[in-house]
Amino acid sequence: MFRILALSEQGTLHGSDTEEAVRAPPPGGYVWVDLTTPDEASLKLLGERFGFHPLALEDCAHADQRPKAEEYGDHLFVVTQSFQCPHGNLDELRWHELQSFLGANYLVTVHEESIPGLDQVWRRLELDGELFKKGADFVYYLLVDRLVDENFPILDRIADALEQIEDAVLTHSEPGDLARIFSLKQGLVLMRKVLSPQRDVIGMLARRGDPRVSEKTALYFRDVYDHLARAVESIEANRDLLGNALDAYHSTMSLRTNEVMKALAILSAVFMPLTFITGFFGQNFEHLPFGSDALMWAMMVSLFVTPLGLLLWFKSRRWF
Amino acid sequence: MFRILALSEQGTLHGSDTEEAVRAPPPGGYVWVDLTTPDEASLKLLGERFGFHPLALEDCAHADQRPKAEEYGDHLFVVTQSFQCPHGNLDELRWHELQSFLGANYLVTVHEESIPGLDQVWRRLELDGELFKKGADFVYYLLVDRLVDENFPILDRIADALEQIEDAVLTHSEPGDLARIFSLKQGLVLMRKVLSPQRDVIGMLARRGDPRVSEKTALYFRDVYDHLARAVESIEANRDLLGNALDAYHSTMSLRTNEVMKALAILSAVFMPLTFITGFFGQNFEHLPFGSDALMWAMMVSLFVTPLGLLLWFKSRRWF
Amino acid sequence: MFRILALSEQGTLHGSDTEEAVRAPPPGGYVWVDLTTPDEASLKLLGERFGFHPLALEDCAHADQRPKAEEYGDHLFVVTQSFQCPHGNLDELRWHELQSFLGANYLVTVHEESIPGLDQVWRRLELDGELFKKGADFVYYLLVDRLVDENFPILDRIADALEQIEDAVLTHSEPGDLARIFSLKQGLVLMRKVLSPQRDVIGMLARRGDPRVSEKTALYFRDVYDHLARAVESIEANRDLLGNALDAYHSTMSLRTNEVMKALAILSAVFMPLTFITGFFGQNFEHLPFGSDALMWAMMVSLFVTPLGLLLWFKSRRWF
Amino acid sequence: MFRILALSEQGTLHGSDTEEAVRAPPPGGYVWVDLTTPDEASLKLLGERFGFHPLALEDCAHADQRPKAEEYGDHLFVVTQSFQCPHGNLDELRWHELQSFLGANYLVTVHEESIPGLDQVWRRLELDGELFKKGADFVYYLLVDRLVDENFPILDRIADALEQIEDAVLTHSEPGDLARIFSLKQGLVLMRKVLSPQRDVIGMLARRGDPRVSEKTALYFRDVYDHLARAVESIEANRDLLGNALDAYHSTMSLRTNEVMKALAILSAVFMPLTFITGFFGQNFEHLPFGSDALMWAMMVSLFVTPLGLLLWFKSRRWF
Amino acid sequence: MFRILALSEQGTLHGSDTEEAVRAPPPGGYVWVDLTTPDEASLKLLGERFGFHPLALEDCAHADQRPKAEEYGDHLFVVTQSFQCPHGNLDELRWHELQSFLGANYLVTVHEESIPGLDQVWRRLELDGELFKKGADFVYYLLVDRLVDENFPILDRIADALEQIEDAVLTHSEPGDLARIFSLKQGLVLMRKVLSPQRDVIGMLARRGDPRVSEKTALYFRDVYDHLARAVESIEANRDLLGNALDAYHSTMSLRTNEVMKALAILSAVFMPLTFITGFFGQNFEHLPFGSDALMWAMMVSLFVTPLGLLLWFKSRRWF
Repeated sequence: MFRILALSEQGTLHGSDTEEAVRAPPPGGYVWVDLTTPDEASLKLLGERFGFHPLALEDCAHADQRPKAEEYGDHLFVVTQSFQCPHGNLDELRWHELQSFLGANYLVTVHEESIPGLDQVWRRLELDGELFKKGADFVYYLLVDRLVDENFPILDRIADALEQIEDAVLTHSEPGDLARIFSLKQGLVLMRKVLSPQRDVIGMLARRGDPRVSEKTALYFRDVYDHLARAVESIEANRDLLGNALDAYHSTMSLRTNEVMKALAILSAVFMPLTFITGFFGQNFEHLPFGSDALMWAMMVSLFVTPLGLLLWFKSRRWF
Repeated sequence: MFRILALSEQGTLHGSDTEEAVRAPPPGGYVWVDLTTPDEASLKLLGERFGFHPLALEDCAHADQRPKAEEYGDHLFVVTQSFQCPHGNLDELRWHELQSFLGANYLVTVHEESIPGLDQVWRRLELDGELFKKGADFVYYLLVDRLVDENFPILDRIADALEQIEDAVLTHSEPGDLARIFSLKQGLVLMRKVLSPQRDVIGMLARRGDPRVSEKTALYFRDVYDHLARAVESIEANRDLLGNALDAYHSTMSLRTNEVMKALAILSAVFMPLTFITGFFGQNFEHLPFGSDALMWAMMVSLFVTPLGLLLWFKSRRWF
Repeated sequence: MFRILALSEQGTLHGSDTEEAVRAPPPGGYVWVDLTTPDEASLKLLGERFGFHPLALEDCAHADQRPKAEEYGDHLFVVTQSFQCPHGNLDELRWHELQSFLGANYLVTVHEESIPGLDQVWRRLELDGELFKKGADFVYYLLVDRLVDENFPILDRIADALEQIEDAVLTHSEPGDLARIFSLKQGLVLMRKVLSPQRDVIGMLARRGDPRVSEKTALYFRDVYDHLARAVESIEANRDLLGNALDAYHSTMSLRTNEVMKALAILSAVFMPLTFITGFFGQNFEHLPFGSDALMWAMMVSLFVTPLGLLLWFKSRRWF
Repeated sequence: MFRILALSEQGTLHGSDTEEAVRAPPPGGYVWVDLTTPDEASLKLLGERFGFHPLALEDCAHADQRPKAEEYGDHLFVVTQSFQCPHGNLDELRWHELQSFLGANYLVTVHEESIPGLDQVWRRLELDGELFKKGADFVYYLLVDRLVDENFPILDRIADALEQIEDAVLTHSEPGDLARIFSLKQGLVLMRKVLSPQRDVIGMLARRGDPRVSEKTALYFRDVYDHLARAVESIEANRDLLGNALDAYHSTMSLRTNEVMKALAILSAVFMPLTFITGFFGQNFEHLPFGSDALMWAMMVSLFVTPLGLLLWFKSRRWF
Repeated sequence: MFRILALSEQGTLHGSDTEEAVRAPPPGGYVWVDLTTPDEASLKLLGERFGFHPLALEDCAHADQRPKAEEYGDHLFVVTQSFQCPHGNLDELRWHELQSFLGANYLVTVHEESIPGLDQVWRRLELDGELFKKGADFVYYLLVDRLVDENFPILDRIADALEQIEDAVLTHSEPGDLARIFSLKQGLVLMRKVLSPQRDVIGMLARRGDPRVSEKTALYFRDVYDHLARAVESIEANRDLLGNALDAYHSTMSLRTNEVMKALAILSAVFMPLTFITGFFGQNFEHLPFGSDALMWAMMVSLFVTPLGLLLWFKSRRWF
């Protein structure tokens, strides 16, 4: 489904969704064509009207590309991803892929589902057509900046979850902690896989020299690059801290096993000798002097002395 | 065994398998020579007719090379590998090696066994001779593209297997999980070892400037490079997640050992004192007041109080 | 809140905190404008008087940037961080962010809270106006040098804490050790995340060529770069040693579990057979020859021989 | 001990072992001087006749250098190592060091002990003097190629040993497995330490441009480089798989400890209550109704019910 | 405390320790000034006589710099470290820092304590003044070469200690092994932290082009670079092997715990049922047929059959 936002060379802003409007504007004009859920026909139309390369159009048809920026003659083909975490639930972390063609005075965006961040930029542009005059590259900056900034609330949420887990693990580890640690780690692996190459793609746009990106706008892309670099650094640091938390979990677990073990050993040290002693005097040999008071009291004493001796020996080996 | 597909300068397509047809075509013509299970004689023939370097021919004779692209005078010698996983069983993962000589207007491919992907490209070319006119480099692109795409179903299957293991490990680890984790890891080590240098080889072809690869076809190789880069990134991320699953396995195991340990300690805490108490009153000392009811009831009470006390002490140390 | 320190072209030093004084000085003069807790109005004023870029001013408004040095036309925008550890307590480790604009003859610093190190440099400049004549870049060096040096007492404290933990872990590990190890590791992850990019930023200033930094001052920045490099290397080495300490903790723990286990096994080996033997002779079978002295003494002997045999068998397997 | 193989400008081949023959040949001739177990006098002779640098000669005297290629005026000084594994026993893995001086028309090799691979190349040259005419660089290629190829049987043997261990570890780990894993790992650490810099050294020779290596021979060195690169990649992959095997060993071990633990817990759960019950009725209290049949049967029933209950509780916690 | 060694332009060698002699020599002469335990006055003197930069002199006053080589106008300021291990005891590993100023015809060295290696080079120069004529850079090479070579006996000692530990750990691990492993690891972390940047510093001197280092002497520095590279590689390999030894320790420990566990389980499997059986017949129920010989023999048989059955079941689960 197409929708088109065009600024004519006279500075008038037109919205449209007819296929005829899908075309590169005359010099002095600007156009942003947005295509949701592309089908073969609409991609073919884009190819004809803008002269896009079959390979790029094929990438649009099979959304699951890695972030990249490719130069095809007079336009750039850029693939980026943005994350979303619908109800603040990190388990539902998913991403949108956005394919963009950036020409001298046009921007064409293609995506599978509607992307809230993109819709916001679209509305902002509808309200303030002046922004369009800064060029198609600036409009693309607005879009990318908006989508990149959506990563930060997610990263903050991950950092919060991480902090909670760190505390929990050292004080009262539960089986559920493990599952939470591993789900966080999966999230970070996923985000790093996507954001790290994306940072390099935006870095390329920020380096001055590309004919589609004015020197002025390049400064803005440098800012986006910076945000992405910060996001990637934050992911790395969080991975480190997560490894920390896992180590803490393991250590706490082995510490506890050790403690339980010691309690068991002490219990055994106390009661095993006692059981033997009472067992000894439970034998039915007729010649054992069961009538002797002295022996009985000796038995009584040994019931205290034997475990005490073993406990002292344990103490001397620093077990508790 | 040779088979030859030649496009004459008049645009007529010839199939053949006679040794005479093994030769570089006149200018304007194109030829693809495919040699299966090379023997010494056939390699010598290739060397004579095309002027291939002895070192490259020796590499063809001893298939087990690393992916590489070497320039020899007017032609490129490229070694690539492709994976196959016959019945969707990851344990049977194996690979084919393909040696290719890419000249200005010819392509010579050498391989040990028949490669299904290559046969498909061969048949496609037999049906549509026009494709040949795009050049030998484009035919080589078709071949490489087909072989590289065969990796993705395998990677998808690995990702699926990984996801299953992740779930299994956290909820109900079994001894078999370990074997599956390690077999997956071996598969990933193998694929990375092959695909990572292969990516660089294709990257070299994609960079414009090589006289055998037209600027137009280089764009297509860039696309293949991109696919390989995605495959390698996916392998890396899966390795990360596999390490995750192994950690989860270890943690789950130590958590369970801990729990079993605690149950054992609790059991012992309950029954060891009881056994002692009953053992005490099973002694045969004549002077113990076995006739006293008070003592008997005291014994009865202590049977409840002692283990209870120990359990409360355990509770206070947060063992359950 | 602004405060301004200006050196007029006649060499007279003026202190001020009126907004009018916020402006770039005439050639020959120097000015340092320090803005604490920036609000929108004061940032706008800076933008108007000095011509700062909106992106840089936005960064000032949202303090939580990564260390960076960006060139905007005639001035540099530099973001640095400095650590502080108020009462020598590593758990309270926190950092200040300092945004600086470095022009040919002015320095503008923006920060959220008052930074003690900055205040000291300010006072030093108030007392010795001559320092100003070495240029705005030299003043900036003084500031950065002071802030970087504040990291070293913190690193020393971390190294001390590390050394204590290393000893403790090998001789008498306590549960608290774990928490201390992980809190140290968090501190190091945090410091590396900030100082490692900061080193690169200062390295850029130290490399000669920037028009805002004189060749003479660049030597001084090289010195600061060196301090930061040393700090980062020290962080890396400490991370290594911390990993060491954690390994030591794990190993000590598993060694002790092993020892406790062995003690438990030995205890069981001694007392389980004894309990069986006495139990055997505690049976009430009438036909067991309880009257036989020989049997009684055989029982007595077996009480010594049986556990001894098991202990010797254990010994032969090198358990103690 | 010297031995010399010289090709005069007339194409006649001379073998010799007199010191006079140790000299650079006239233009058009070629010479290969091989010095085994160098002493001070013979090194001094080399220095005088060929003008070798004292530092290079010192390196020859103290064999234990890292692989390197150093340019000294008109000749190259190259140090390489080759591995040998005498009776197929990986524990006896050791290496030879070969110091070589490569000039325009001479090759001087120095080594401590006789190297079988070098002797083979020497004999091949004695039989086929024509090979000499391809230049000293080609002779050096023959030598290096031969020595590098000796690594592969060793790597194959390591791969075989690794495969055996992988199977063994998952099905029936034995204490000996550990020792074998660690001995393999030491072998791989050693080989990587030597072969990884050696690869770079040969890579330098393969890059065209060195005046001592003809463009034609550089192709051959590229082939050797390739073999070394394959060896290093194979070492890396094997290290990965070895880490795998070690992880498998740990996991199998902890799995078994867990299982033994569970068996112990189940045993205790069954017999501890039984022992208590029988102990209870073994007490000598006169007022316990030992004459009651009902009590006796109740006891009998409880002997079955109590452990059954505990086992069911264990089952409900998924212990077996 | 100064000491000066000067070669006049006439080739006469003078030793001195007066402050007047501290000065750069006239062209054609050479001087080496060595300053031990620098105080403020002597550093100021150096600054005045040689024109050293305040930053470099400040570094001399605060010895604890990282290895570095900095260019200040006409001289180089180089900081290096050398290790010492006084009585062959690795626990006493410590290092000396040496600050050097290398000019066209002078060398100034500053250090806290007397360095034995430096004293040896000093004495060698006193005996053989000719060495001085090779230039100040060559004297500096002699010094650095001497100090770098002192690392190798230490590395050899570490390798020996490592080998001992490897054997010990697999055959008879003791608690002390852990402490030794961690002390070795600390030593390696320390040496790598110092030697790795030092290698790069010497590498800079070895690269031709620096006006203070003649092309001839650069060859010698390349040799020192090589030694340092070998030291660093050896440290890396030893770190790997140490990680190995630690893994071996862990594995051996868990293997033993497993074995002890199994012995405990077997013990329990044998004696717990026996204790129950004898306990059963130790009950005082009057209606149990204690007079029956058949029952007595059945009991006797069950004493053998029950544990045997359990042991066979264990055997079938491959526990021993």
